[in-house]
Amino acid sequence: MLIVGERINTSRKVKGEPVIENAVASRDAAFIQKLAKDQVDAGATYVDLNCGTLREDEPESLEWLTKTVQSSVDAPLTFDSPNPVAVERALAAYDTGRGQPMINSITAESGRYEGILPLVQKYKTKVIALAMDDSGIQSDPEKRLTVARDLVKRLTDAGVPLDDIYVDPLTFPIGTGSDVGVAMLEIISDLMNEFPGVHTIAGISNVSHGMPARKILNQAMTILAMDRGMDAAIIDPMDRYLMALVAATEAILGRDEFSMNYITLSREGRFEGL
Amino acid sequence: MLIVGERINTSRKVKGEPVIENAVASRDAAFIQKLAKDQVDAGATYVDLNCGTLREDEPESLEWLTKTVQSSVDAPLTFDSPNPVAVERALAAYDTGRGQPMINSITAESGRYEGILPLVQKYKTKVIALAMDDSGIQSDPEKRLTVARDLVKRLTDAGVPLDDIYVDPLTFPIGTGSDVGVAMLEIISDLMNEFPGVHTIAGISNVSHGMPARKILNQAMTILAMDRGMDAAIIDPMDRYLMALVAATEAILGRDEFSMNYITLSREGRFEGL
Repeated sequence: MLIVGERINTSRKVKGEPVIENAVASRDAAFIQKLAKDQVDAGATYVDLNCGTLREDEPESLEWLTKTVQSSVDAPLTFDSPNPVAVERALAAYDTGRGQPMINSITAESGRYEGILPLVQKYKTKVIALAMDDSGIQSDPEKRLTVARDLVKRLTDAGVPLDDIYVDPLTFPIGTGSDVGVAMLEIISDLMNEFPGVHTIAGISNVSHGMPARKILNQAMTILAMDRGMDAAIIDPMDRYLMALVAATEAILGRDEFSMNYITLSREGRFEGL
Repeated sequence: MLIVGERINTSRKVKGEPVIENAVASRDAAFIQKLAKDQVDAGATYVDLNCGTLREDEPESLEWLTKTVQSSVDAPLTFDSPNPVAVERALAAYDTGRGQPMINSITAESGRYEGILPLVQKYKTKVIALAMDDSGIQSDPEKRLTVARDLVKRLTDAGVPLDDIYVDPLTFPIGTGSDVGVAMLEIISDLMNEFPGVHTIAGISNVSHGMPARKILNQAMTILAMDRGMDAAIIDPMDRYLMALVAATEAILGRDEFSMNYITLSREGRFEGL
């Protein structure tokens, strides 16, 4: 399971305070580096960097975040921006020795597709492909699947290997309808069956938007999506219970031979107190 | 989701002590009644009664358990024994006003099938159908599915409504092989697709036998099995985290319209501290 740690995001608030935004704006390297290290220690495979709220300062800030985070952890990074200028600044500063970078994200929207694709090609990045186009986000799952399918085809036609594509079917809040959870799960199954070798990923936490006890819903949704083949997730790796459930799910689904990873995590004390 | 609370089982030990067995043997009604009430308060739909370790005293003890528990809770009961004499003693003492009783379980083994079937028919019970026959438990999932399928056909041919049949595909410990989890999930999917209207159930905790951090594995397995259509489970309802995850899974899978049950449980404080 590829875990993209979502915590370094300037739109995220802690007790109502934009603490990440403040840290980036004031170039508080120690604060950001701890956020990165904590996530990697907790099991994040990639560390997502998002400073979109800084607007015109986004390119410079994303470059700063890249340099700052890679001096603290060895994990590869995910550049989370629709802005090709910001993403390219980050890619140029990226130390490729740590593994392929990932762009979060491309869509089929005109402008965005043409802006991001050349970076995917030039830097041979992994890329998250959001199932949306110029008509916006389709709430009809059949239409959303069509958008996703077309985007995968366009990317592979442009030479992007299937193995570098992480399709995000877009997570709708279950508060908007009793069928949106199942719809998302079905899009994941369909994509994984139709394009063997492609990956699926989701920003899971949107499923619980507006609901009470969000953490529990996010945990259940992650397991359910894994059952449909999802092999990557943008989540909070500091949620120890979630990470434990992910490891358990991998063991049950036969993705963790002899459950060795699960047993090792247990021996390391990762499940203590859960 | 139909939850069968598994706690009243004389083979269960607490800190190495056979406290349930002792309570049943000494007719400690207050102890047993509390066990029953706690489970129902926690969300159990059915309360399972198993006193198999008492051997020759099983029939009398199961009758005593039945009377004792039904004077404390309104929930229907599950009689957990392969012994038709014990099950019939319990059924005769059962107060049908609380809903259909359930027998745990029938199999395709000769003797057991013929012993239990007349009780299912006479008392119009629900029945758990274990996927095993005279050849024992098949570790090959394809063969186990065949046994389950044949058993469902025999039961329906004998007039048992599909809606009263809860097929248990038998849970193997994942420690025995990396493919046993997936095999079980596939048997559940196949049965639910092949016999629309039938139910599936499992004694989930066996999945984690011999593994560390068993609770987490049991929780993940429950969610995965629900994703394949399992609509009943024999679990420990006192595991609050598990019960919360089950409620979240029902909301995501569209089995909880407008997530009203999830929201209600949250308002009742059921998820507090999780």
